[in-house]
Amino acid sequence: MPKHLQRDLDGLRQDILRLAADVEQAIHRAVAALRGRDAVLARQVIDGEGLIDQEENQVDEECLKILALHQPVAVDLRQVAAVMRINTALERMGDLAEGMAKRALALSAMSPASSPDQLQPMADLTTAMVRQALEAFVALDLRQARAVCRMDAEVDRLSGEAIDELTGLMKRSPEAVEAGLSLFTAVRQLKGIADHATSVAEDVIYLVAGEMVRHRPEALRRRDDED
Amino acid sequence: MPKHLQRDLDGLRQDILRLAADVEQAIHRAVAALRGRDAVLARQVIDGEGLIDQEENQVDEECLKILALHQPVAVDLRQVAAVMRINTALERMGDLAEGMAKRALALSAMSPASSPDQLQPMADLTTAMVRQALEAFVALDLRQARAVCRMDAEVDRLSGEAIDELTGLMKRSPEAVEAGLSLFTAVRQLKGIADHATSVAEDVIYLVAGEMVRHRPEALRRRDDED
Repeated sequence: MPKHLQRDLDGLRQDILRLAADVEQAIHRAVAALRGRDAVLARQVIDGEGLIDQEENQVDEECLKILALHQPVAVDLRQVAAVMRINTALERMGDLAEGMAKRALALSAMSPASSPDQLQPMADLTTAMVRQALEAFVALDLRQARAVCRMDAEVDRLSGEAIDELTGLMKRSPEAVEAGLSLFTAVRQLKGIADHATSVAEDVIYLVAGEMVRHRPEALRRRDDED
Repeated sequence: MPKHLQRDLDGLRQDILRLAADVEQAIHRAVAALRGRDAVLARQVIDGEGLIDQEENQVDEECLKILALHQPVAVDLRQVAAVMRINTALERMGDLAEGMAKRALALSAMSPASSPDQLQPMADLTTAMVRQALEAFVALDLRQARAVCRMDAEVDRLSGEAIDELTGLMKRSPEAVEAGLSLFTAVRQLKGIADHATSVAEDVIYLVAGEMVRHRPEALRRRDDED
């Protein structure tokens, strides 16, 4: 019986890694759609959201099956509970990527306003955070989890810069207010994805070290006051 | 043993109702702080967030304890899993209410711009949605859960109106762009809370009727394209 449990937990980890890879791809595509005002790419992200939701439902059902079948306790139970939390976080990240794609779609129909320079480095950092947070979970790697938490500060800094730039643009050019608001929303959504990746990393820290950093942000990092 | 399980599940339901009441209060106060540019009230919401986080952690631990101790199956297992999902949703709502309070704090230091008329009816609807979604969960009331999903459409409509109003303000008055952005963010955060309440109601529908509406929004309601 415990052997089957370990096999099922391994399967669960594979499933959640696949889901994370799909979310990463959605973020990359949404940002490319925003930067290139690419309506076709934006629609691909929006259409792909259904698959992400399906995968999330499957992981959830799989978790319930494992709980009912193996009735795990102690470490194994905490692993399954962590997968359930991470799964919800990944679903929310997928929603936010879809939201960014919707902003890209809206922007593609507006008079052009260039997207802030910070968008691409923010996206690169954020997708790295998603990937590394998941790797930290699978390997129960405390160091990597802490590294993700630190990366969040840089995303916050870039997001603050981008928002200052967009605020300036909207003040100077009233005709750019609509486009500015769409870009502002997309920047905040991207920052929201980084926040979710951070909470996954915090869950890993709690799982490995038993430290509750989830709600003590000051312990590890400074959360932006933008929220 | 099953008797103790029922007692523990009842306790869990009480805990989550208390958490929801605290979240409701945070929303009310955050909106009052926004409308009245009340920095003192805004700080109360921000300070109160720690308590909400603590309660969320306690519910999470309680769920794990119930799973380990009683190893529930079937309906009881799904109930515990639903509490875990609802708990996460309530935590996110608390975060969003805190975010609104931070916007209120920022606004209290800016030159005055009146908040959109839609803010108060949006807040009234949203807190009613939170309360009714939780009542629907405790009573396993399908009708009430569906009513919550329908209320979301009205929140979306009000939110769209408020955003149009703020966009017009920012176009007309460049000096109001900063305040406009803070109010825009707060309106979106409030709408985000209503979205979470809706997802709780969708979980209740799934729990009671086995219908997976969570990711089929078109079945019950039209989600706004603003996201």
